[in-house]
Amino acid sequence: MCLITSNEDLINSLKKAKDNKMQTVGFVPTMGYLHDGHLSLIKKAKEENDIVVVSVFVNPTQFGPNEDFDRYPRDIERDYKIAKEAGADIVYNPEVEDIYPKGASTFAVVDGDITKKLCGASRPNHFKGVTTVVNILFNIVMPDRAYFGQKDAQQVIVIKKMVRDLHMKVDIVVCPIVREADGLAMSSRNVYLNQDERKQALVLNLALAEAQKKCKQGNTKVTDLKAFIKETIEAQPLAQIDYVEILDAQTLDEIKEIKKQALAAVAVKFGKTRLIDNVFIDS
Amino acid sequence: MCLITSNEDLINSLKKAKDNKMQTVGFVPTMGYLHDGHLSLIKKAKEENDIVVVSVFVNPTQFGPNEDFDRYPRDIERDYKIAKEAGADIVYNPEVEDIYPKGASTFAVVDGDITKKLCGASRPNHFKGVTTVVNILFNIVMPDRAYFGQKDAQQVIVIKKMVRDLHMKVDIVVCPIVREADGLAMSSRNVYLNQDERKQALVLNLALAEAQKKCKQGNTKVTDLKAFIKETIEAQPLAQIDYVEILDAQTLDEIKEIKKQALAAVAVKFGKTRLIDNVFIDS
Repeated sequence: MCLITSNEDLINSLKKAKDNKMQTVGFVPTMGYLHDGHLSLIKKAKEENDIVVVSVFVNPTQFGPNEDFDRYPRDIERDYKIAKEAGADIVYNPEVEDIYPKGASTFAVVDGDITKKLCGASRPNHFKGVTTVVNILFNIVMPDRAYFGQKDAQQVIVIKKMVRDLHMKVDIVVCPIVREADGLAMSSRNVYLNQDERKQALVLNLALAEAQKKCKQGNTKVTDLKAFIKETIEAQPLAQIDYVEILDAQTLDEIKEIKKQALAAVAVKFGKTRLIDNVFIDS
Repeated sequence: MCLITSNEDLINSLKKAKDNKMQTVGFVPTMGYLHDGHLSLIKKAKEENDIVVVSVFVNPTQFGPNEDFDRYPRDIERDYKIAKEAGADIVYNPEVEDIYPKGASTFAVVDGDITKKLCGASRPNHFKGVTTVVNILFNIVMPDRAYFGQKDAQQVIVIKKMVRDLHMKVDIVVCPIVREADGLAMSSRNVYLNQDERKQALVLNLALAEAQKKCKQGNTKVTDLKAFIKETIEAQPLAQIDYVEILDAQTLDEIKEIKKQALAAVAVKFGKTRLIDNVFIDS
């Protein structure tokens, strides 16, 4: 197990591992400040691969100018320890200039509605930053499988599309959302929440779970379910809704009626902290 | 030696070759209708690698709406024969849908001046198409080295930048322009030229070579050299200049005086046929 900061050392380590018959590489790209959601990805990667690489890189290109890049929580020593315990073989913690060399101006861009709705609407260059950094990290690590959390549902769909469209040779493995005991979806950003915000943020999971139940009971009209989720969230005085959407779970296309698996996804601000959550629903 | 049209067959063939200790893969991406310029790339690739893949794919995304995609010359049987003689192990000739699956909308884009000047100015989406297809082909073929002709000088610079920015693991090898006996740079598009156009097109090489000589003799002012090249070309009645430029050979930045290696590049239409040519010049 080692902490690596240079691309060259990483590539040499992986080459050495391959030479030692460590055939498959599992990769968990993260922005660090690891929580149990990340750990579930690392554990899954360890089950399925000979060697597991966890990257810790707060990627500047996926943050907007007024977002939380500077204050995003960072603690590499803690991350290293936790990742090691979960089964990581290499923690890769590059500097910004290791990923984006001076003058870099090449982007991997997924065009179309898929990156313009949901989080793409309020964070216009977010997915361009995500797909670019993931493309770069895949090129450096060359994993057989890469692990992402379902919490970032749109990210998963966009990355799968990039991999398919650009014929990248990596399997994308998606792991379920991990929640706190009280139901709040795990996020590195949860540390921003004060006590009141933390309490009111529980409404996201509650509203989504209740909508899922309603749908199972036969309420399959998307406008009704969206209205229900909105009202439930708005009953919390600190909640400011960014979006509440119910879309086709595969394509993110608009739907009116839930006939096959749909994705109910929300983004809501509590104070300065923007949280996202989602659930699959079907009838 | 084999002709392969499906991605799966190509990937399996390359896997088999790797298992048989054919360690290194050299790749020559082409749009087919091979000429001696392509053959010089294939021969160079054969010298430096265990296995050589030549792709023949007329890439629709790098053509503008009023360009020559439909009439671009195609002859896969001839290409297969010629590539084989030059040392290719695999000729890969995919269909458009093999490269761009239904609904594909992901692009590898090199932003900035580098793709906006020269050919980028008159062909606005050209380089977006080039970098995307090269990115895809690299992901499918996974070559150790890829071979490009200096004739497409800007393409070489843009692809090198993409490879560097996205950390792609492939060496870009650039081979010199190959010319007809009378000096015309080899191009699949030369077949479009009628007798008069073909004769007058010789002016490109003549003007560039003369400018190179002038510079060596101490005429290092870019405006003077550009004016000379323009006048020389314009003396041919069928020539319509798209651009005449002298730029830094590494960065394509504007320069006023030739102090280190510069690139003198021209694009000129003869009838409906747009030809490009270039030469390195220094003092």
